[in-house]
Amino acid sequence: MLIVEVIRRKRDGGELSRAEIEELVSAYTRNEVPDYQVAAFLMAAVIRGLSRAETAALTSAMLHSGQVLDFSELKGPKVDKHSTGGVGDKTSLILAPLAAAGGLFVPMISGRGLGHTGGTLDKLEAIPGFRVNLSLEEFRRVLGDIGCAMIGQTAEVAPADKKIYALRDVTGTVESPYLICASIMSKKLAEGLDGLVLDVKTGSGAFMKDPKDAEFLARVMVETGEQMGKRMVALITDMDQPLGRMIGNAIEVRECVEIMQGKTQGSEDLFALTLELAAWMFYLGERAKSVDEGRRLAKQLIENGATLAKFRELVRAQGGGERICDDLERLPKANHKTEVVAPTSGFVQSIECERMGFASLVLGGGRLTKEDTIDPAVGIVLHKKAGDAVSKGESLCTVFYNSEPKLLDARRIISAAYKLGAEKPVPRAMVQKIIEGKSA
Amino acid sequence: MLIVEVIRRKRDGGELSRAEIEELVSAYTRNEVPDYQVAAFLMAAVIRGLSRAETAALTSAMLHSGQVLDFSELKGPKVDKHSTGGVGDKTSLILAPLAAAGGLFVPMISGRGLGHTGGTLDKLEAIPGFRVNLSLEEFRRVLGDIGCAMIGQTAEVAPADKKIYALRDVTGTVESPYLICASIMSKKLAEGLDGLVLDVKTGSGAFMKDPKDAEFLARVMVETGEQMGKRMVALITDMDQPLGRMIGNAIEVRECVEIMQGKTQGSEDLFALTLELAAWMFYLGERAKSVDEGRRLAKQLIENGATLAKFRELVRAQGGGERICDDLERLPKANHKTEVVAPTSGFVQSIECERMGFASLVLGGGRLTKEDTIDPAVGIVLHKKAGDAVSKGESLCTVFYNSEPKLLDARRIISAAYKLGAEKPVPRAMVQKIIEGKSA
Repeated sequence: MLIVEVIRRKRDGGELSRAEIEELVSAYTRNEVPDYQVAAFLMAAVIRGLSRAETAALTSAMLHSGQVLDFSELKGPKVDKHSTGGVGDKTSLILAPLAAAGGLFVPMISGRGLGHTGGTLDKLEAIPGFRVNLSLEEFRRVLGDIGCAMIGQTAEVAPADKKIYALRDVTGTVESPYLICASIMSKKLAEGLDGLVLDVKTGSGAFMKDPKDAEFLARVMVETGEQMGKRMVALITDMDQPLGRMIGNAIEVRECVEIMQGKTQGSEDLFALTLELAAWMFYLGERAKSVDEGRRLAKQLIENGATLAKFRELVRAQGGGERICDDLERLPKANHKTEVVAPTSGFVQSIECERMGFASLVLGGGRLTKEDTIDPAVGIVLHKKAGDAVSKGESLCTVFYNSEPKLLDARRIISAAYKLGAEKPVPRAMVQKIIEGKSA
Repeated sequence: MLIVEVIRRKRDGGELSRAEIEELVSAYTRNEVPDYQVAAFLMAAVIRGLSRAETAALTSAMLHSGQVLDFSELKGPKVDKHSTGGVGDKTSLILAPLAAAGGLFVPMISGRGLGHTGGTLDKLEAIPGFRVNLSLEEFRRVLGDIGCAMIGQTAEVAPADKKIYALRDVTGTVESPYLICASIMSKKLAEGLDGLVLDVKTGSGAFMKDPKDAEFLARVMVETGEQMGKRMVALITDMDQPLGRMIGNAIEVRECVEIMQGKTQGSEDLFALTLELAAWMFYLGERAKSVDEGRRLAKQLIENGATLAKFRELVRAQGGGERICDDLERLPKANHKTEVVAPTSGFVQSIECERMGFASLVLGGGRLTKEDTIDPAVGIVLHKKAGDAVSKGESLCTVFYNSEPKLLDARRIISAAYKLGAEKPVPRAMVQKIIEGKSA
């Protein structure tokens, strides 16, 4: 295969064969094709787009560049959820034990936070002793024992994606639904799944701000997953303000544990979204005959304490201090706290996600570069969310911090993030659209 | 400047500033930007296109990456011609001495042949002793002494183009009028010109086969040159069959010398095109008040022997055996010759340029890779061209060769290149369109 000919064909809007895409990906993974040729190909793919067949071929080639886990010895459906990410998005911490409590296997491989969005791994590591870097053998054992396990990406999984993503990051080729799909799906499908629920965020705080872009990405991912034999659904969900009421690492664990304890006040949006995602996981995994039945099952598994019990098992199995489940004071705590108050009376119009995410990052809760270390204890607890009435001087949120200068920066950012106004804004729906696969 | 931001802007169809383009080119030339980022930028530029301002900025940045010659001490207009290349295209060998004989300075920097098209330097080197690798100081001296000089590209001229062209070649980003313009013009304008005549080929044997593509490239180049303060014109000319009647190296020199001797029979198309290009050179260089006057001047300078006399000076000044001008038998000669005859009677419909160019290459007269050496003596003399009547068994062309196996290949290719038919084809115009700059 002449790589230049393949690049030129994609440049001119032509369609590549599965064999050509496989050869390109596998030769690149073996370091037999230089970065500059793949950079040119990626740019052509971003601008010209990829057909569904090309996207599936790319996803498959990236998936098979590494180890594809096989959990067929576990008798039961393997279902996971993937979110495109947002501020305060912590559903995974509840969904893994919830789905496992309902009889699914959830082999969840997650990422770390970068920039204004947090990462599931960082949140889990706020639990004293919790190990996210299990070997694949440990991962398999925990999954088999308790029905769920949560780890970070390993070198064995989709090495082509690591190499291609690093190149996309420095060549302006990140923003493409086709390449995003291949990147996400090549990692997720390495989990050896039967079904996958996608939570595609839209709104001002999402990567895909325009609902049309989010829907397009969702369709590409659902159709690609289906072509690869998976049961798929995507929920287009609102990320116009932070999800739930806590932003940080330890305090996001706290919010999740509180929900699993049945305390959902102030976290209604997070709780509702978690139930929707769980309902679909149960439906795809055939633990429920309908999504409604899945929703009822999920609610029951929270209310009867089965989810918290499963979470406790998970924390123990991965080396964490399970007693945090009973005593949240055992989670890392910041030394200081202060309030950010409303400058005027009125209604909260909106809370800008990116600003709130950066405020948490500035406090020390996130990282700007992969090398930064994070402070698990800092964060923000929102008392007022969009649509809430506030009086001048009333607290909008509490900031937990360990450094006075960082607080000064964070306070300025938080103040700018909260938009107040005289009128009560129209509420936004949490689940805006559902893109179902044909076999979902 | 954040390179990734610049790449993303071009990816999304935005326009870059002059400063951004200059910084990109100069940092790349200093090896401070990796190939993969420039590859992504080039692909975005190929697909999205560049505005005239961007094209001029890119051309200027590439031009100023190296030495820009300054011949202002030479009192007289500096004018050159550039052709996009074709088979049998040898006008430069006549135009340089012709224009110099008419009072212009022609500081011509040319290229070598690659693939099916020949290169001016290879043809000149068929003249025993002729040195094309003059230093820039020698180039300046010869130009000042006799009014023209012909050399190859030196390391000092447009190093950014060398680096960028090498990258384009392996990343599928060659075919773009904007990048072609910047590559050609950055080298040509390094000659310190006042005016430039472009010969943009179209037809089956041209790089731009579609006349619309050729015209578009011509407009981009003319407008870019004008933005850079040069007097510009482009002639869209026919390259549907080889130009003139000889293809090779020594024999192309022979055809040129014969024309300069006044023997134009069989070379009418070459002679006509040479006069048109010379006419425009004289007009742009203000040696003629009109193109018509320029054409008359050119014809006169051939007929009165002034062009041949100037060519003789040029050959001597660059170390060549000037006696070839009187005795063409002193040029390298192949050991064998043979005829390719017409298989049927009829009219020559067309002669495929690429096949004829490859036949010459196969004989040893061209190179497939930059490292190949060439045999100056081999080549093909066409006796019949498109529109000519032939009888079965009559010679179409004579092949000069040094190797029997190579002849066998070449003969097969030549036979396939000649299309015969019953009807006399409609003649094609040599100059199909003229794109004049506003200040031309």
